[in-house]
Amino acid sequence: MFIEISDEQIDAIINGSLSGYRYLQHISLKERSVLMHTIADEIEALDDGLLEIAHTESALPLARLRGEKARTVNQWRSYADAVKTGIYAEARIDKGDGAAKADIRKYNKGIGPVAVFGASNFPFAFSTAGGDTASAIGAGCSVVFKEHPGHPQTSQLMAQAIGRGLEKFGAPASVFSYLQGGSHAIGQSLVRHPVIKAVAFTGSLGAGRSLFDIAALREEPIPVFAEMGSVNPVFVLPQYLKANQTALAAAYVQSLTLGVGQFCTNPGLLFVLKDESLAGFKKELRAAIQTVDDAKMLHWGIMRDYNSAKSKLSMQGGVELLGEGRVSATDTGVAALYSTTGTAFLENKALAAEVFGPTGLLVECDSSAELGKIVESLEGQLTITFAATTEDIRTNTALLDKAQEKCGRILFGGMPTGVEVVYAMQHGGPYPATTDSRFTSVGPDAVKRFLRPVSFQNWPDEFLPLELKDENPLQIERIVDNRRALASDE
Amino acid sequence: MFIEISDEQIDAIINGSLSGYRYLQHISLKERSVLMHTIADEIEALDDGLLEIAHTESALPLARLRGEKARTVNQWRSYADAVKTGIYAEARIDKGDGAAKADIRKYNKGIGPVAVFGASNFPFAFSTAGGDTASAIGAGCSVVFKEHPGHPQTSQLMAQAIGRGLEKFGAPASVFSYLQGGSHAIGQSLVRHPVIKAVAFTGSLGAGRSLFDIAALREEPIPVFAEMGSVNPVFVLPQYLKANQTALAAAYVQSLTLGVGQFCTNPGLLFVLKDESLAGFKKELRAAIQTVDDAKMLHWGIMRDYNSAKSKLSMQGGVELLGEGRVSATDTGVAALYSTTGTAFLENKALAAEVFGPTGLLVECDSSAELGKIVESLEGQLTITFAATTEDIRTNTALLDKAQEKCGRILFGGMPTGVEVVYAMQHGGPYPATTDSRFTSVGPDAVKRFLRPVSFQNWPDEFLPLELKDENPLQIERIVDNRRALASDE
Repeated sequence: MFIEISDEQIDAIINGSLSGYRYLQHISLKERSVLMHTIADEIEALDDGLLEIAHTESALPLARLRGEKARTVNQWRSYADAVKTGIYAEARIDKGDGAAKADIRKYNKGIGPVAVFGASNFPFAFSTAGGDTASAIGAGCSVVFKEHPGHPQTSQLMAQAIGRGLEKFGAPASVFSYLQGGSHAIGQSLVRHPVIKAVAFTGSLGAGRSLFDIAALREEPIPVFAEMGSVNPVFVLPQYLKANQTALAAAYVQSLTLGVGQFCTNPGLLFVLKDESLAGFKKELRAAIQTVDDAKMLHWGIMRDYNSAKSKLSMQGGVELLGEGRVSATDTGVAALYSTTGTAFLENKALAAEVFGPTGLLVECDSSAELGKIVESLEGQLTITFAATTEDIRTNTALLDKAQEKCGRILFGGMPTGVEVVYAMQHGGPYPATTDSRFTSVGPDAVKRFLRPVSFQNWPDEFLPLELKDENPLQIERIVDNRRALASDE
Repeated sequence: MFIEISDEQIDAIINGSLSGYRYLQHISLKERSVLMHTIADEIEALDDGLLEIAHTESALPLARLRGEKARTVNQWRSYADAVKTGIYAEARIDKGDGAAKADIRKYNKGIGPVAVFGASNFPFAFSTAGGDTASAIGAGCSVVFKEHPGHPQTSQLMAQAIGRGLEKFGAPASVFSYLQGGSHAIGQSLVRHPVIKAVAFTGSLGAGRSLFDIAALREEPIPVFAEMGSVNPVFVLPQYLKANQTALAAAYVQSLTLGVGQFCTNPGLLFVLKDESLAGFKKELRAAIQTVDDAKMLHWGIMRDYNSAKSKLSMQGGVELLGEGRVSATDTGVAALYSTTGTAFLENKALAAEVFGPTGLLVECDSSAELGKIVESLEGQLTITFAATTEDIRTNTALLDKAQEKCGRILFGGMPTGVEVVYAMQHGGPYPATTDSRFTSVGPDAVKRFLRPVSFQNWPDEFLPLELKDENPLQIERIVDNRRALASDE
């Protein structure tokens, strides 16, 4: 049975999230951190029934889902630990001189209730109880989550786990609200609602841009953090290729087809210089792609879009099929590799479009200069990878500089799939990879998206937030009178 | 003679700013800081001829302009010193384990060329060489500045000083470009240009919102930091009022009429509870406003808008004139104070509109509950001020909580005019005070607006930016393997 929620119910739920926000503003960073760990415990405690349901809804393998669940728990815990340090409070104190120069103190507080939209390809880590929800609560913001139509039962189990965590901690249910029903109209009402102060989204360019546009057209525009994927170019440089044809072909095809190619960091483009190593490398690539089994994709809509995008790519001028994976059924995603030339790539924007699934395009380039032009022609990317030796890079430093202008993460060797949850991770990039290149959606720094600073001028200590009181009760690092001060220095 | 720039010239100038940006990416934070000090020296060296011209163009008094020039120099110097510490690089290093866990390192780099629009009311501090330009260059971004039509000669002198600073340091002129001609079309072309990656603006709500909308409609949307003023409510609580009627009336009227009321932090609304102190306070306010001399405003357009807004306010139902300042001429801004009731204020949004100039509205409220409703009804503000004793606040803590949701800076006593250039300053606030409440346009933290993070995965030390190299050559604070690490700890 499918129950569509009414407009009045939506409005009541969203209005209610304001009290959840206010509650979070009144507990300390330490308490917020404990709350997040309590929610992590409840997610961790979910049994394999969750994995079975998620597997049924997403077709993702159980082992992968088990890993993703652990990652999700780790996100809550690592963000909780980061929040407790006070790093995101960015407390600054200028004590003034007791006369003309005022006592001014600033810290970051939660921006307000946040709307979160989950991604189909990560039913745990980028959905209901995923990184966006964890980082919004870490910032002191309540969350209103819109159920994901691809995995509603999984979404609900996760929402219930969050609810149990809130209850155990003693927090009101309004800290996390759940909008049932998969329609676009519900999502749009959510983004338009005046109580909502920010939006987090992971999914397609079309859907992400549409939410961005709605938010920008509001009377009060609000920030939208939409992570919309990318083609994640890999540049293969000559010295490296010469010595690593077999290993590189295997690594590339493995990354390209991992999880049926359904990762936003999937390396869809492979650039290589035409030289004596190329023929051998192409042979290795063909051999590697031919060993890839077909597999069910997340849902039929994604498979339809994948086949359509692949077919469109195959019909472009100058594009040839290099090799295809195995086919065992008619309702699966089949891997494929195409090839083209640098000239054709520079002339036809369609060749740079994302094919969401296990299809890649090898681009054979004439010169380093052409590679440079190609980097300049690229749209914003989550990642750019160099398969190169240090000597290769030394002779192509301009390429490295240009690549930095186009992406959020730049790799020397390895493949871009596998996004670690660490402080140093930047999962984001210039548009259209995301709608705001200045933030990450993975790693504790994801919390920064949902904060805004407030300054207190000449307030008596008793009214200041804990972050700014004279005695520094939270023992956090602050900047006091232009100097970084650890608690012990003050 | 007025030379309008051609579209081709605009395009060439903006494209050129990319090489200025790339230059700044290749010098170290220390060098960038020296460059900023060199520019500060050149601004400081400008003689009183600058003040005379600015006075002629803006009608601002020479003493005020002298102070503003010193403030502008101080902005460059304090932002330069902050940049050198590495605080805005936010370097994070996760060293990995040499196997499955990668070595990932992240720092913030300049987002790209920035378009800056100056404000008429601060021809130095918020214009050509003002805080937006200083903070963009501090972030490693080149600047394309659009000449301000209110003070073109002042703008040009300042641009020349920046140019001399760049030349002395040895930086290319493309670090700072200047678009001559005052038309809106030039500004719009600038914001639409694909090379531009962020916009900073100080001015009216209409103009700021229009730039925001243009930027949001781009194929690649870019952030717009528009500071668009506010009405800066002052809440007077009973115990404080009882003991401070004369002093508060004088302080309020002085702040309201300072600089002919042409500050974005001008306190346009004054809320007070109806009690036995009110009659005396109104008498003091009337007496104070009647001693205020009229004065020339920035330019005729601002005076026309001021008179129109004042007249509109005076004609609203339930609004009465409380007192007016002196009149000595027909082309001046004349101070005025009106009064109304809390009920009328809550029923009529027009009473909360900004009147840019020396006019205030006293709102007489029935109860603390009504004050609470009024705070909730307010749009976003740069500042909210409480004229209160500690006892007043203790009995009105809900008011303090609600006020924090509505503004960027909250004051206990004093008046909001006078925005100090310190780390702890938040000059910003929820819309419509600004288009992005998460950032400040005053204080070193203004630099944060123009940065975006880039992660480096598994790169050999020789290719890493200085901020991320093993030996920490810049001796900046970083987070290494989840711990804050000062240079000396690593």
